[in-house]
Formats: sequence, structure tokens, C-alpha cells
Amino acid sequence: MTGKLYVIGVGPGDPELFTLKALRILKEVSCICVPKGREEGSSLALSIVQKAVSMEGKEIIEAHFPMVKSAEARKRRSAEVSQASKLPNSQASELDAKWDETAKNVLSRLDKGTDVAFITLGDPTIFSTFFYLYDRLLESNPNLGMAIIPGVSSITAASAQAKISLGLADEKIAILPANYIGNLKETLERFDTIVLMKIHKVFGDVLKVLDETGLTRNAVYVSRAGMDDEMIFKDIKEIKESDLNYFSVMIIKK
Amino acid sequence: MTGKLYVIGVGPGDPELFTLKALRILKEVSCICVPKGREEGSSLALSIVQKAVSMEGKEIIEAHFPMVKSAEARKRRSAEVSQASKLPNSQASELDAKWDETAKNVLSRLDKGTDVAFITLGDPTIFSTFFYLYDRLLESNPNLGMAIIPGVSSITAASAQAKISLGLADEKIAILPANYIGNLKETLERFDTIVLMKIHKVFGDVLKVLDETGLTRNAVYVSRAGMDDEMIFKDIKEIKESDLNYFSVMIIKK
Repeated sequence: MTGKLYVIGVGPGDPELFTLKALRILKEVSCICVPKGREEGSSLALSIVQKAVSMEGKEIIEAHFPMVKSAEARKRRSAEVSQASKLPNSQASELDAKWDETAKNVLSRLDKGTDVAFITLGDPTIFSTFFYLYDRLLESNPNLGMAIIPGVSSITAASAQAKISLGLADEKIAILPANYIGNLKETLERFDTIVLMKIHKVFGDVLKVLDETGLTRNAVYVSRAGMDDEMIFKDIKEIKESDLNYFSVMIIKK
Repeated sequence: MTGKLYVIGVGPGDPELFTLKALRILKEVSCICVPKGREEGSSLALSIVQKAVSMEGKEIIEAHFPMVKSAEARKRRSAEVSQASKLPNSQASELDAKWDETAKNVLSRLDKGTDVAFITLGDPTIFSTFFYLYDRLLESNPNLGMAIIPGVSSITAASAQAKISLGLADEKIAILPANYIGNLKETLERFDTIVLMKIHKVFGDVLKVLDETGLTRNAVYVSRAGMDDEMIFKDIKEIKESDLNYFSVMIIKK
């Protein structure tokens, strides 16, 4: 009997936004896999879980991810190699080795019959690094037993906290990673609601486009939705540099 | 002391996908408001809640909604009147009266100091009728005490069940109500993932567009995600008329 892999969305940050299913499975499994990335999110997922579930007797393994920057690169088989090759040699091979180790660590637990829970902030199907790992695991074991437990995404948590609807009736919603806002103006024309993820990186550029299109007053900025230090700006002109952070979403409604 | 209105996303159908917060509040409140619509979803929300929480001693009030078909109409003050005017007179005034009654019913409980939970399938910020009611309630009481408790949306539940990612890295996601797919081709060109809601109404038309754009094999159809009678089609050509229903989502990945 091989173990099963559970991919669990732990919600946006408030431990009360766990689902009953997430809580049950996290209590049951003896091994928890935590994404370890360049970004803040990874350690936060574990700290949320620790608020709700005792870690006593559980093994925690860290998942390292390749330096893949685009989905296109991911589709190429040698994605991690080609990306890594842009780095100095020692660093590249270190990343490569860690990435291999991640897949091996998960598979070895499953092979021993141990169930593993991979935890991810928000919902696993929305911009979670898990899917990089999934491709790799499937290469090694096409019959991998895996279930995804959906969670509350940071997007709906942000709009809930801001008390706005993302869409009603015939409205069209666009969700854009803010790093890639090249055609933001066009999207603003065609959609009723535009959600910009990780807005902190491009806040100035977005503000400029909103000013030009007369939509500045239609935007809401939510940082760390549902967490103790949540901030909501209904007037985005009031946002200071220090208010910008990784867990931020901007919602523009026309 | 006036009561507080809680708008609670009860998730896509599986009672284990309740959040801890939703469960706590539904146990605490003595009045539950259930949307009563032309569509299937309303009664389902209550039946899911009943699986998780005892209704003993709780008052259940029904919320009737106006025949507003578009968000544009909603923005006009007289939305429900102008829409209703297209119906025979007796039917129109009946709808009008019921809609008034809904707002009055909720406000009267709040005025008495009773907390009210308005339940909605999936997540309240994604195509929930609640926001029609909210506008009306705010007209009567601009200081209304209200909190939205986000839930697992049917969109992420569907992609979790189909084991696909909605977006990774720089991918752009579009969510379209399938009734309004006029420019579907263009959206297919510009976005990496396209989610079509309520696909049952326009399945034939969508299939035609997908065939024309060579994307038929990139589409997944999920009906009643996470419910006992869930169906997932990874080959949408196999879908029969009888497989189409209200709780259906199509996800197209390029």
C-alpha cells in the first residue's frame, strides 16, 4: 500500500478559515510537506497550520522549488535546467539538487505507505507552487494517489473583507498576476472586475494606468486579508510605500 | 443594540468544506436567511447547512430577489421596477412586493438585536445574489453591521477535483458567466485559463467555438464538484445533454 498525497489549501491566514476537511486530514497525516520558497508565503502556511493542529509526532519536510519564472518555461521538460543555467554554476547545481531532493523526499514517504499533506496558502489551484512538484511526481509515478482539498483563496477573502462583490449576473472577472500588466488598459476596457495579484511589485505603474483611465477611485487595495495586521484602502492614493507587501491584492471594479 | 448580518459562504456542496468560522457563526445565530430564487442553488445552500448544523430553535426566513438580469440594471435605482415592468402587471407587482418584504424581514430582525446569517453557496463575493440585497439594506440603514465570511468557491473546488491549476506564475485567468460569451474567441486568445460558469445553458455554442479554435481537448467539464453525484469530463465530446446542469463549470487551459 502506497501513501496518498493531500494538497491542502489552508486559506488566507485566519486559522478559522480552515475547512473541516483540511483540519481532519492535517490531524490524521504523519508527514507534512511545506513549500520553502524565495517568498514569504511558505513559512506563513506552516504557522497557520500550527495554530490549528498540533505538530507533535509529525515529520515536516521542506519542498524546494526550481527557479521557474514562467508557465511557458515549465512546459519545457528541461525548464529548471535552462533557468538554472542563467545562474552561476555552483548556485544552479545547488538549486537543481534541492529540487530533485524535494520530489524524492515526497515519493519515499508515499512508497513507505505514509500519507503526506502538502500545505499551501489560500487555495491550491490559484498560483500555488504545488503544480510544479506535481508534474515532477507524475513523471516518477503516473499512478500517484493524490487529492486536492480546496481552500478559501486570498482573492475572495480580500473582497469579503472589503465588502465588495467580485462579480454579479453578467459581469466578467479577470485575475492577473501584477508582474505582467503589459495590457492592463485593454483588460480594464473589456472586464467588469480586475483582480491584480502581488500588486506591491508594480504599484506605481498600476496607479499611473488607473489615473490615465480615470479608474483610481474604483480600486480597492487589501493587504494581508483576514490577518491581524490587515489593511484595506478604499482610497489608494493614501497608500504609502510601507503599506505595500507580498500578501496584497488590488480589486478594480468598473 | 442592533444585530449583525453575517453573509456566509457555505462552500460548493460537500459539508466538510465548511470553514470553522462558518460553522461557529451558524451555530450561534438564531435566524438564518436563505435566498429563494428561480434557480436551484437556493435550496441546496440550506440542505448543506442542515447537514452540519442543527436548525432546532432557529428561525428561517426566505429572501426573494428581483428579476434583475444584468449588473447594469442593478446600478439604476429603479432596477427591479424597470425589469418587472416587462412582465404582466400582476406578476410584476408580486415580485416587487416580495423583494420589499425580504429587505424588511432582515432589517426587522436586526433592529430587534437578532444576528442574522445569510447563507450562500460557494463564496459570497462570486456571483452571489446577496449583493442585490446589500444595496437595498444599505439604503435603509447606511450603518448596517455586516461581515462577509468567505467560503470555498465552486470554481476552485471544480479545478481541485479535476486536479488542474487555474493559474501559475504569469498566467492570466478569466472568469466569464457563460450566458455572455459573445467575445469568447478573443478571451481565449488573451488569457491562459478561461473559466465558464453555468455552461449548461450554452454548451453547444461553446463547443463550436472550441472546435474552431482547436481548443476542444484543452477543456474540462466539472458538474456538481465535490457532491455525491459529481461528474468530471476530460473529454468534453463525451458529454450528453443529460450531463449538463446548473452546477457546472468548464475550465479551458491553453
